[in-house]
Amino acid sequence: MQRYFVQPDQMTDTLVSIKGEDAKHISKVMRMTPGDHVICSDNQGRVARCAILELTDSSVELSVAEWIGNETELPISVTIAQGLPKHDKLEMIVQKGTELGAERFIPFQADRSIVKWDSKKSKKKTERLQRIIKEAAEQSQRNKMPECIEPVSFKELISQSESYMMKIVAYEEQAKQNETSRLAKLLSRADIGNESIIIVIGPEGGLTEHEVQHLQDAGFIACGFGPRILRTETASLYVLSAISYQLELLR
Amino acid sequence: MQRYFVQPDQMTDTLVSIKGEDAKHISKVMRMTPGDHVICSDNQGRVARCAILELTDSSVELSVAEWIGNETELPISVTIAQGLPKHDKLEMIVQKGTELGAERFIPFQADRSIVKWDSKKSKKKTERLQRIIKEAAEQSQRNKMPECIEPVSFKELISQSESYMMKIVAYEEQAKQNETSRLAKLLSRADIGNESIIIVIGPEGGLTEHEVQHLQDAGFIACGFGPRILRTETASLYVLSAISYQLELLR
Repeated sequence: MQRYFVQPDQMTDTLVSIKGEDAKHISKVMRMTPGDHVICSDNQGRVARCAILELTDSSVELSVAEWIGNETELPISVTIAQGLPKHDKLEMIVQKGTELGAERFIPFQADRSIVKWDSKKSKKKTERLQRIIKEAAEQSQRNKMPECIEPVSFKELISQSESYMMKIVAYEEQAKQNETSRLAKLLSRADIGNESIIIVIGPEGGLTEHEVQHLQDAGFIACGFGPRILRTETASLYVLSAISYQLELLR
Repeated sequence: MQRYFVQPDQMTDTLVSIKGEDAKHISKVMRMTPGDHVICSDNQGRVARCAILELTDSSVELSVAEWIGNETELPISVTIAQGLPKHDKLEMIVQKGTELGAERFIPFQADRSIVKWDSKKSKKKTERLQRIIKEAAEQSQRNKMPECIEPVSFKELISQSESYMMKIVAYEEQAKQNETSRLAKLLSRADIGNESIIIVIGPEGGLTEHEVQHLQDAGFIACGFGPRILRTETASLYVLSAISYQLELLR
């Protein structure tokens, strides 16, 4: 069933109102009519199956038919901090990361990031990433829409990481040394329902030793993601799949 | 260290010979000189660090400096059978699948596959996929180069699946019903070193009920890959990451 995110104030206990692009999508693209059902989420945990009462191209009024549980969200909150990669890789990372359950994306300027985003480009690109996230969240039936912020400096990343309970840095030197059990040990003792994890992944050339040292000083634990060397855009998919497997499938 | 695949007959106990495109890559792109080291793999389990003895643009002679273990291969053999998807998604699937340890790819014509590959297009496209696999295998430091065969019919897929010890079909209806433990149960009892797994993944529209029934009749077990609905190109990455996590990190 088609899924739409609405502002919390557009969702009462019995009625939902959808405006703008989403209303157009319902009427013009999906060609729905009164009586048809969609899923509405207020992005704060309230999700309902709703029936369309009336619609125009710019506004759809719905009644709540049934409240639905929050079962498509990972049981812990996961943030992917990604060193700015080249080309359109970040688009792929946020799209797939959203499908796989990430809650937040923090792009950051790493020492070996080749691209630089100036502030004008940054705002536009982040808006585009957020649109990709919205579409992926609806398609994969997420109840929460993840957030992608504008790229931050490495220093700002360290400062933002302070609020997280578990801090992981993907470090390919660990993979080469066959360090393979640390990630599994950390995830096995994650505190379901309470945990917040931040995972830092370097850009194409990897993180510098200096950056890794800095992260470790800030409480990050360096983990290998298996014995093969993963491309930067594959590392976040690996760790999100591993988190889902450990916390959703193994339990 | 740069990695190259060679034919088994180009690798004796002490000497290795590299010809063609790879020789050109070593001399022209990498600008290597005698004394430089590369990793050579015969794709049948023999892997060695080798020193360049002499080189031209079309031929490189090397001596074996050290034999290396097989530690970058998944401990079980995994085949991804992928319903033909649209656009260039198959390229992304074989590239990421190779990074994540798959050994074989079988594209197949599913009921809901929108594209059809005629036999001329099929040969060319498969060659291109094989080139993408080779590059990804070298980059991710695989010791075995995975194989991608030309697309087969559903009937042929069923017939090829007979030789596998464990057969899994990704079924999103299971995900919607919150079936989340079957994959974990199967993987936990995989017979390390001996097991061969085939995983069937539908195209964009999913598998038809008829196809799923047919696969189940042939011994396939329908598994959900977590509670979110994954795009077709994300499902193989999820299951390969889960296999790596269960068999390489959790042990």
